[in-house]
Amino acid sequence: MTTSQGATREQGRVPQEERTRAMRARLLEATVELLVERGFSGTSTTLVSERAGVSRGAQLHHFPTKNDLVVAAVEHLTQVRGAELAAAAARLPAPRSTRAVLDLLGDHFTSPVFTAALELWVAARTDPDLMAAVGPLEQKVGREVHRLSVELLGVDETAPGARELVQATLDLVRGLGLANTITDDRRRREAILDRWALVLDATLTGRTRA
Amino acid sequence: MTTSQGATREQGRVPQEERTRAMRARLLEATVELLVERGFSGTSTTLVSERAGVSRGAQLHHFPTKNDLVVAAVEHLTQVRGAELAAAAARLPAPRSTRAVLDLLGDHFTSPVFTAALELWVAARTDPDLMAAVGPLEQKVGREVHRLSVELLGVDETAPGARELVQATLDLVRGLGLANTITDDRRRREAILDRWALVLDATLTGRTRA
Repeated sequence: MTTSQGATREQGRVPQEERTRAMRARLLEATVELLVERGFSGTSTTLVSERAGVSRGAQLHHFPTKNDLVVAAVEHLTQVRGAELAAAAARLPAPRSTRAVLDLLGDHFTSPVFTAALELWVAARTDPDLMAAVGPLEQKVGREVHRLSVELLGVDETAPGARELVQATLDLVRGLGLANTITDDRRRREAILDRWALVLDATLTGRTRA
Repeated sequence: MTTSQGATREQGRVPQEERTRAMRARLLEATVELLVERGFSGTSTTLVSERAGVSRGAQLHHFPTKNDLVVAAVEHLTQVRGAELAAAAARLPAPRSTRAVLDLLGDHFTSPVFTAALELWVAARTDPDLMAAVGPLEQKVGREVHRLSVELLGVDETAPGARELVQATLDLVRGLGLANTITDDRRRREAILDRWALVLDATLTGRTRA
């Protein structure tokens, strides 16, 4: 009987947990969409609950403030996109070329998650409460992207200057991502990453030109 | 008589023109200060006229809308800062080291003009009217900073890949500028620019390590 009751409770709970998880995901995805479409100042909790099809009460239960919502949304999408980035890297034919890895990073930093994060960064600059949440998130995301880049590029970080060149690569793609929010910048970006790959191969990865 | 009347008109006009120019400069500088302190959404024409000590009527005469004001302000400060950058470069002991030039560029992209421009770029992304003004300004500024960087670094842009490496350098400092708005990033930035100067000297400027 105990086992049977336990199993019943288990069956009852799992769908509820799944529904909750799906509802949270809808809220977070709607938030990212609105950050991309309307910017931070044009995003409101009312618009998010409407777009996600979630009641105001349920939304406020999970995310009491707009800041809670936007920070969780960018964190969520960063995890999703980080996993996508790792999966795309795993699909690259071995040995991975530096240029192909730079392409993945360039795509990552011109994707909606970058745009949404940019809205958050800029809003946080003049909003101490938001900064208190965005600062640690940005550090965590930065460490994770750095670790992944080192792995994808196949870099030995103990070599002198290697760490700084990986950081420079990430600052470069961040700068390219920012430029891309003003104009469609693909051709210029491609030419720059072509050249950057040669620099990295000559100074860092020990690979020769393909 | 004609000459004397002309001279009198001239004397009368010059102070008026100077007063107008000074008033416009106060409005533009107050706008940049507010963009840096409160962001785009926290900047209003009312706050600007209060801070500049200029009547609402005079402000509206010169800059009818908030968008007119913020675009003119960033353009004005970009000219001022561009002149400061060129002057600082002229003061560098000859021959200019690549590292010293990167320091000037790094300072430029972490200065208030970068922060104010960032507020404008991000706001323009979701505001078509503002984008119509910011897009051309950004192109003009980009060309000017590129030209100055080529000159300061002493690069021969006809060499294969040289143009892309100068562009990469500017995207790198733009990325460093963006990172610096979240955390004080000076130590990391210095180490990256140290390393990048070595790369540029090895591949581009033909200079050897100092």
